[in-house]
Amino acid sequence: MPELRKDPITGRWVIISTDRAKRPMDFVRESVQIKGNANCPFCPGNEGKTPPEILAYGRNGSGKDTPGWSLRVVPNKFPALGIEGGLDRQGEGLFDRMNGVGAHEVIIETPDHKSTLATISDKSVEEVFWAYRDRMLDLKNDRRFRYILLFKNHGEAAGATVEHTHSQLIALPIVPKRVREEVDNSKHYYDEKERCIFCDMIRQEIETGTRMILENDYFIALAPYAPRFPFETWILPRQHSSAFENMPAPYYGSLARILRDFLARLDSVLAFPSYNYVIHTSPMGEEINDHYHWHIEMMPKLTKVAGFEWGTGFYINPTPPEEAARFLRESRP
Amino acid sequence: MPELRKDPITGRWVIISTDRAKRPMDFVRESVQIKGNANCPFCPGNEGKTPPEILAYGRNGSGKDTPGWSLRVVPNKFPALGIEGGLDRQGEGLFDRMNGVGAHEVIIETPDHKSTLATISDKSVEEVFWAYRDRMLDLKNDRRFRYILLFKNHGEAAGATVEHTHSQLIALPIVPKRVREEVDNSKHYYDEKERCIFCDMIRQEIETGTRMILENDYFIALAPYAPRFPFETWILPRQHSSAFENMPAPYYGSLARILRDFLARLDSVLAFPSYNYVIHTSPMGEEINDHYHWHIEMMPKLTKVAGFEWGTGFYINPTPPEEAARFLRESRP
Repeated sequence: MPELRKDPITGRWVIISTDRAKRPMDFVRESVQIKGNANCPFCPGNEGKTPPEILAYGRNGSGKDTPGWSLRVVPNKFPALGIEGGLDRQGEGLFDRMNGVGAHEVIIETPDHKSTLATISDKSVEEVFWAYRDRMLDLKNDRRFRYILLFKNHGEAAGATVEHTHSQLIALPIVPKRVREEVDNSKHYYDEKERCIFCDMIRQEIETGTRMILENDYFIALAPYAPRFPFETWILPRQHSSAFENMPAPYYGSLARILRDFLARLDSVLAFPSYNYVIHTSPMGEEINDHYHWHIEMMPKLTKVAGFEWGTGFYINPTPPEEAARFLRESRP
Repeated sequence: MPELRKDPITGRWVIISTDRAKRPMDFVRESVQIKGNANCPFCPGNEGKTPPEILAYGRNGSGKDTPGWSLRVVPNKFPALGIEGGLDRQGEGLFDRMNGVGAHEVIIETPDHKSTLATISDKSVEEVFWAYRDRMLDLKNDRRFRYILLFKNHGEAAGATVEHTHSQLIALPIVPKRVREEVDNSKHYYDEKERCIFCDMIRQEIETGTRMILENDYFIALAPYAPRFPFETWILPRQHSSAFENMPAPYYGSLARILRDFLARLDSVLAFPSYNYVIHTSPMGEEINDHYHWHIEMMPKLTKVAGFEWGTGFYINPTPPEEAARFLRESRP
C-alpha cells in the first residue's frame, strides 16, 4: 500500500510508493560527464569573456579579471533581472507588476574545469560558502531587495548551461512564495508552541534514525519525511540558526565537509546524477528570529515531473526516504 | 527591463523576460511523433492487456473488454494509489500519514493509435469531457475521497509513458495544496468584494484583449497575466461555474471545440510540442459556491525547470504572455 505523507513545514502531501519502490539502479538517467571546453568562459585565461568580476579569492597580487584566483564571482552575462533602476510598482486593474530589478551573479567555484563540488577540497567548498555569505552581506545594503537566493544547477538535466562548476545568486525585490510559506508556517508553529519546528524535527529525526544520512559537529543531512523527489536531502544546522549569512565562522568548514561527503555518496550511489540545490534562509529584515531554521534543499534529478505535479503541487515519489537514506548512509565513496 | 508580475489568484510572482523574449522557434524541443506500436495496450483488440474496463462509450452490443468502443476508461495498471482499504490516519510525532488510498484511472480517448486530441473530431473530444464527468460523479460516491484530479500528459517530454492518446484521473483523500490555495484565496477575495476573482479577471482580459487567444459561446482561452511557462494557457467558462462536473450539457461541446481549436494552433505555432493540462475544479463537498471558477491549465513543455524554480516556487518565463497570445491568436492551423 502506498503512503500519503504530509510535510509539517509546508503542509504539502506527497504519495510515497512503498510497494514497487525504485532503487538507485532503477532510474534511467544520464551521468554528468565533464567534456572540457577550450573556450570555457569560466576557465582561467578567459576572464575577458565574463562581465568584470565582483569578487575573487586567492589572488596574490595579480590584477582584476586575470588568472590567479581560486574562486571568482561575476555578474551573469544573461541576467534574468536588471540591476539598474527603480521598482516602479504599478497596478494594472486586478494585476500587480514592478520592474524586474535584481542582481544575478555567478559563483565560479574553482578554476579547474574538470572538478565538481564533490571532487574539490573541503577548503575549496568552504570558500564557496564564504563567497555566498560575502555576496549576501554586500547585496543586503541595497534596500530594493527583499530576498537573496543561492542555488546550484549541476548537470545539463538540472538546467546547467555551462559545465564548469558554478553556483548562482539572484537578489529579488520580493520574497518567493515557497520561502514565505515556510517562514510563515514556522512562525505560526512557534507562536503556538514556543519552539522551532525545524529544531523539533531534527530532534525527532536523530532519535528515529531511519532517515538520517550524515551528521558532523554542526550539521546533519537527512531525507525529509515527505520528500517530493527520490533521494531529496536536506542539510540543516543542528542548533537553531535563522540566517545562513550569520553563522558562526566554524560552521562554514563544517558545512563544506558534510556537503562534500554527501555529494561523494550521491555520486557513488546514483552514478554521478544531475542535481539542484537551493539555500532557504530568512528573508532580509527578519534575519534574527526564533522560528525559522535555514537549510539547504538538495534535489537529485532522477524523474520527470509531469502535469499531475504542476497542476497540484502534489508529488508522487517512487522511493521512500528511509530507503534513500539507507543507501546514502551505507555507501562508502 | 524584465518585469515582475504577480498572479492575483495564487499570489505567485514570476519574472517575465521582455527584452530577449523567446519566440516560438527559439525553443529547442522535440516534436511529438507517433511511432505506432503493434503491442499497444490501449489499441482495440488488446483489451486484455489492461485491467477490466470501468466505462466505455460507443459499444453497439459488443461485450465488455472487446473492440467496438469509441472511448474506454480502465484502472491504471501501475496505480500511484491503492483502491482498497481504509485511510488509517496516523501521527508519527511531528508527522502525519495515511494509507495511499485512491483511484487511478486511464481515459483512452480514441481507439485510433495515430490520433491526438488535436486531430480527432470535436465530437470525440466532447466524449472525453463527458467521460471525465461520468467518472467524477461516480467516484464522488466514495466518501474516502476529497478531490478528483483530471490531467493529461502528452508526449514523452511531458511524462507520457504510453503514446496512444489518453488522460488520467486520480481520486485523492486530500485536497492538493495548489488547489486548496486557489480556492481559499478566491474565497478571501469574494468575502471582501462579493465578486469571483476569476470573473473579474475574465472581464478585464476581454476588455484588454492583448492576452486573449480564443473565445466561443461558453468559453475563453487566454494567456494568464503571470504565466509560469512560455505559452501557458488557461481555458475558462465565460460565466461563473464552480464545478466542472456540474456544467450545463451544451458546455461540453463548446469546451471540446475551443480545446481542439487551441491544440491545433499550438501544434502549428510550436511544431507539435509536448504538453500537460490539468483541470482545477472545486473540491468535493464544496462544489456549489460563488468564489471558485473551474478551469483548465495547459502547460506546453518547452523549457527545463531548474533549482531556482523548485526552491522558490518562483518562475522565470522567457516569453511574455502578450506575445504568446498573439502567436496563437494569429495562427491559421
